[in-house]
Amino acid sequence: MRSIREPDSGLLSINAATVRKQWALPEIIAGCARHGVRRLSPWRDQVAATGLKETAQRLRDAGMALSGYCRGGMFSAADRAGRKAALDDNKRAVDEALALGAPCLVLVVGGLPKDSDGRIVSKDMAGAREMVRDGIGELLEYARPAAMPLAIEPLHPMYAADRACVNTMGHANDLCDELAPGANGGLGIAVDVYHVWWDPDLRAEIERAGGHPGRLAAFHICDWLVPTADLLLDRGMMGDGVIDIPLIRTWMENAGYGGPHEVEIFSANNWWKRDPDEVLRTCIERHRTVC
Amino acid sequence: MRSIREPDSGLLSINAATVRKQWALPEIIAGCARHGVRRLSPWRDQVAATGLKETAQRLRDAGMALSGYCRGGMFSAADRAGRKAALDDNKRAVDEALALGAPCLVLVVGGLPKDSDGRIVSKDMAGAREMVRDGIGELLEYARPAAMPLAIEPLHPMYAADRACVNTMGHANDLCDELAPGANGGLGIAVDVYHVWWDPDLRAEIERAGGHPGRLAAFHICDWLVPTADLLLDRGMMGDGVIDIPLIRTWMENAGYGGPHEVEIFSANNWWKRDPDEVLRTCIERHRTVC
Repeated sequence: MRSIREPDSGLLSINAATVRKQWALPEIIAGCARHGVRRLSPWRDQVAATGLKETAQRLRDAGMALSGYCRGGMFSAADRAGRKAALDDNKRAVDEALALGAPCLVLVVGGLPKDSDGRIVSKDMAGAREMVRDGIGELLEYARPAAMPLAIEPLHPMYAADRACVNTMGHANDLCDELAPGANGGLGIAVDVYHVWWDPDLRAEIERAGGHPGRLAAFHICDWLVPTADLLLDRGMMGDGVIDIPLIRTWMENAGYGGPHEVEIFSANNWWKRDPDEVLRTCIERHRTVC
Repeated sequence: MRSIREPDSGLLSINAATVRKQWALPEIIAGCARHGVRRLSPWRDQVAATGLKETAQRLRDAGMALSGYCRGGMFSAADRAGRKAALDDNKRAVDEALALGAPCLVLVVGGLPKDSDGRIVSKDMAGAREMVRDGIGELLEYARPAAMPLAIEPLHPMYAADRACVNTMGHANDLCDELAPGANGGLGIAVDVYHVWWDPDLRAEIERAGGHPGRLAAFHICDWLVPTADLLLDRGMMGDGVIDIPLIRTWMENAGYGGPHEVEIFSANNWWKRDPDEVLRTCIERHRTVC
């Protein structure tokens, strides 16, 4: 028998992608506030559309705290100019995260190197991983003095080619050990159950991360559907799939994580087509009952 | 600069799934022979449709050797009766593999436990992995005295829920260490580049497997397309995707593997719709030029 407590409903956060097709960011902020959700994670394009100052003001007015800022990364590029452009853009993302009071900037680190047209130009995964390590290291030199933690998000291996070549907690822990040893080095990990649930080393690697205060920087939830119709846009609502979310949450808590539970669902043919108030009500209900 | 030799064209094998939509097994055997391909890996349903004795006779007549037999496994089930049925079916697969002179029976081990209607009934991945370990162990008691090697095929993590909860070479090596320590214990690994190319530990785990003669039991090739349109049926022809196949082949060879290179492509909207003679010609050409 396992003993698992109910999640603290005050820790629920909504990643703004979850209702992005129905609402612009001001509506999302207002909608979350209306439903009593006080934590949010917006995306850069949403913030740009609304304006940075305007977004910060609306968040303050709504009494809303961020659970993270989406996203920096994409460090691997075909050439030096591409990598320099990525670094500059990442520095702007750090500035925005600071302006919004985000607890961390989430990093989707990039896959195989692409040219400026977005075409993959190399099959060298080891080289891509070196670029990513170097890119995170360079960004840390900017983010650490600014006191903006970076959170590496290991993505599911099915995104290794085109989105992120860091695909396991173990790899993310290795990068943290190398680039930010010790406690509160300004570099942590965003643990998304969708990406890591399958990993037989998950529990051990969460425990390993827990040994470094601050490293467990974010916790994202949704569910893995069987069958999954699309590699990117068919994530499930918590409870509709096969992930044992309470078990993973308990591992996070036992490792010292006490932060938000951020619901992030990309769902082109289901949740993005529903009434967004219904989506938020469902997130709240499922967080209470199956997370 | 890396130094990579051309692959030995005599090692090319065709997995019969690659042209299964166009041809029945007798046509596949005849087609491979016509194109000078002397190695094949058939599936159980294809053999059942043709008849076991008939298949064996046609293979002999065509001078065709097998590179493996697809497939056993699916050890995880909702209850004891389901697991017993799986074991019995796997024993029949071993018998068929022996009758056909296959060098190994490939195992797709199963994901989360399913009931007899194929519905997933549990989210317990650790439990599923125990069932799989126990199932392989029981089947080994039957296969080892019969001298039919079993080959665990780690599947891509995107199949963890519904097809195989062994998703890395490291996990497969652990199972071999536990169930068949030492050399030629009757249990090995089928390395399919599609499933394992993303793994940062791949090289080390291939080397680890190479330390046990016989453990590297099969080598499957195809390519990972960007974008991938379907989780199951959108594999690419070698050279059309992002996998550095010559690099992984070289790691296999350096670890002592000298066996066949088996082309296994599930491609509902491309290769399964083409003239099968064109498909075979393309496999031969690409094996020579990009593998």
